[in-house]
This record gives sequence, C-alpha cells and structure tokens, in this order.
Amino acid sequence: MTDAQPTTAPEPTVPEGLTVAVLGGTGPQGRGLARRFAAAGVRVVLGSRDAERAQATASDLAAATGGDVTGADNRGAARAGDVVVVAVPWDGHADLLAGLREDLAGRVVVDCVNPLGFDKRGAFALAVPEGSAAEQAAALLPDSRVVAAFHHVSAVLLEDPGVTTVDTDVLVLGEDREATDLVQALAGLVPGMRGVYAGRLRNAHQVEALTANLISVNRRYKAHAGLRVTDV
Amino acid sequence: MTDAQPTTAPEPTVPEGLTVAVLGGTGPQGRGLARRFAAAGVRVVLGSRDAERAQATASDLAAATGGDVTGADNRGAARAGDVVVVAVPWDGHADLLAGLREDLAGRVVVDCVNPLGFDKRGAFALAVPEGSAAEQAAALLPDSRVVAAFHHVSAVLLEDPGVTTVDTDVLVLGEDREATDLVQALAGLVPGMRGVYAGRLRNAHQVEALTANLISVNRRYKAHAGLRVTDV
Repeated sequence: MTDAQPTTAPEPTVPEGLTVAVLGGTGPQGRGLARRFAAAGVRVVLGSRDAERAQATASDLAAATGGDVTGADNRGAARAGDVVVVAVPWDGHADLLAGLREDLAGRVVVDCVNPLGFDKRGAFALAVPEGSAAEQAAALLPDSRVVAAFHHVSAVLLEDPGVTTVDTDVLVLGEDREATDLVQALAGLVPGMRGVYAGRLRNAHQVEALTANLISVNRRYKAHAGLRVTDV
Repeated sequence: MTDAQPTTAPEPTVPEGLTVAVLGGTGPQGRGLARRFAAAGVRVVLGSRDAERAQATASDLAAATGGDVTGADNRGAARAGDVVVVAVPWDGHADLLAGLREDLAGRVVVDCVNPLGFDKRGAFALAVPEGSAAEQAAALLPDSRVVAAFHHVSAVLLEDPGVTTVDTDVLVLGEDREATDLVQALAGLVPGMRGVYAGRLRNAHQVEALTANLISVNRRYKAHAGLRVTDV
C-alpha cells in the first residue's frame, strides 16, 4: 500500500559511507562492537594505544566479517570517525578523552564505559565526580555530541561468531536528538539489537551502574544477560 | 514422567497462608501491587496513615478481585504481614520505617521506593546518604530482612483490570537468599511477571534510579515500559 500521508516519522537511518571509529578497539567490548558493525556493512576504524595491534585486530575482523575494518592509533581513529565509540577501561577514560578534545570536535562520541569496581562480593558502581562516564566525556569534550549507549551488551556474545542475533535492547541517552537517533539506527543494524531512547545524560549513571546487576544475574543464572524494554 | 533424581532445585514457592502487608497501600503503586497479589490468592493487609482510608481501599480491592484484602494503619499492617511491602513516597520513607523498627522485626521487608526528583526536563535520581532507599531501610531496620524489588512495575498497568498479564521482570535484590527467593516467588504469582535475582543491596541505587530512565522511555514512546532480562 502506498500512503501519501505517512502517520509516523521515517525511521532514522545510518548515512551511506558513515565511518565508525572504536577507541579501545582491541579490548573485548570494542572488538565485539566493531565486529558487529563491520558485519552490518559499516566502515570501521579500530583505535588502540598501539597502532600495530589495532591493525592486526582489524585484519582479523575484516577477514572474519568480510567488512571494511582498518586500524590506527586512538588519535588517528578519532579523526577518521564520524561516530566514535569509546570502549576503553574506566581507568584510562578521562586521560584519553582529555587528550583528544580537538580530534573529536564535531563527532558523535558514543560512550559505553561502565565505571565499576570488583571485590569478593562481585561488581559494584564506582562514584564518578561528574556523575557518570558519559557526563565526564561531555565535560571533557564540549565540542562533541556525546551519547551514552551499548553498556549492557555482552562482549562474549558480540565476539561469538556462532551468535547470529544479539538479543538485546540498547539504551541510548543524550541531549542531542539527531545524535541519539543516529546511534539508535546504528544499534538497529545489528541483527536482534534495537536502540531505545532512554533519557538525558544526567540519567546515565544508573544505566552504566546497572552493568553490576547484570554481572550478578550472569553469576546466579550462568547467563549472558541483556535487557529488553517492554511496551516499546 | 516421574523422575527420582531431579536435576534442578525445586522452584521456590509462596507458603500457604502467607500474609503480605503493603505500607502506603492506598497510593497507586501499593494499591496496584495489592490488587495483583490479592487476585493471585495471597492474603493482603493494606496499610495507610489513615486506617479508615486503608479499609475503604481494601473493600474495593476485595470486591474487585474476590481476594482477602483488609485495611489497617501502617503499624497494624506491619505487624500483620509476613512480607511487608514498602510503597510509600520517598519523602516519608525514613520517618515511617524508623518508627516501625520493632513492628517489622523478623519480617521480610520489600522496599520498592524510587528516590526521584522531577523538574522541567523530567525525572532524575536523588542522592541518598545511605546509597539507596533499600540500604536506608536496611540501616533503619537491622532486625528485618530487607529486599529491594518491584521498582519498575507500572502502577497504571497494575491497576488496570483490563490488563490480565503484566509483561515484565522484577529485579529482586538482597543479602538473604531465602528472602530474595520468597520475593521472586511472590512476583511469579502475578501472570506475566517473573522475579529475577539481580544482586546485593549495594547495587540497589541504580535499580531504583533506572525508574527515571523508564519515565523518559514512557514520554518518548507513549508507553508503559517495563524490563525483561534476556538469556535467563
């Protein structure tokens, strides 16, 4: 049926030729996200402190997915990306971003870092002076459009070639509608995954911290837990 | 098939004759939970500051569900309950519990309070000195077994007689396995609802605060959002 007056807005899409850079692209989370984006036909540039290591991982992912994946140091990747995913350990988060302020200007920066501590009783949320990793990124990158997303996606599932659909919603937070729409669309490229808008950055802390609860779920149920939002 | 050697532990169940008290039982969340428990055949005592108001609401719920629902003041309800659900506004949370310490001794106390603020930009998490409402309850009630649960269940859905299944998981947190098992079983009595263990009370803050994100989801998508945990 053709409909001259669509009653809903068109679904946001990922622009042709978009490049996604992944900082910390040689860690499990970054590598896993890069694999899925590459498999979905998105051009990916992996960033790492060590450019050679990034290139080696990129070659592996290109071979595994048939996608366009290259490697660079973090600065090179930041400059190459239209969307730049930050998937570094919390420990190095502030230092890395502070050093890339100009390189990341104008980019959509997607923070998926979970500030967690671990002890004998499991994982717990760390206090972050800015409120959350995402708000820290926004404070350090005033010329970027910071979005928080991809916190709860299991790296184990992302990296498993036998897992063809990643059965989870991705909570997407930010102040800039165009940027959150784009990141939702990017999530939607991965089979099984759906991007759901879930509020402003001031509400990012609990989304990051909830990863500690999912780790508890995983331990109790021997699972790789994800989240689905119902009624949406 | 009979199986002499079951391979999994038996599902925890709700003991026959268990009484659930709901403090703040005349508010939307308390009333909604009471309705669902009563409909599932659990004896319910509604508590309120105003015993007459609790009795009036209880009569309505008994008539609507065919269940066993009575009303009392909050102290009377606390004493009557084996499991006591705390569904009061955050404002009165500490004062109420501090005054009921002895009445609640030995009880499983289920805190479902979300410490949230609201402004023009929507909902946001309030800072709680103890970390979370549940940890505040645990600090004020050293002789009770405090569990955190039922934070994300939409009162609108709970109270809607046309909604026959409540399509959501309930994250259940606590230190006491027997108590969290019981609360999971209680959640499981409501059609569509499932209790999922989701960690210790030190990780309750983000579960409470996530309600702010679900409010953002509800606004954006005109929904009554709930959560499902995948792979469990």
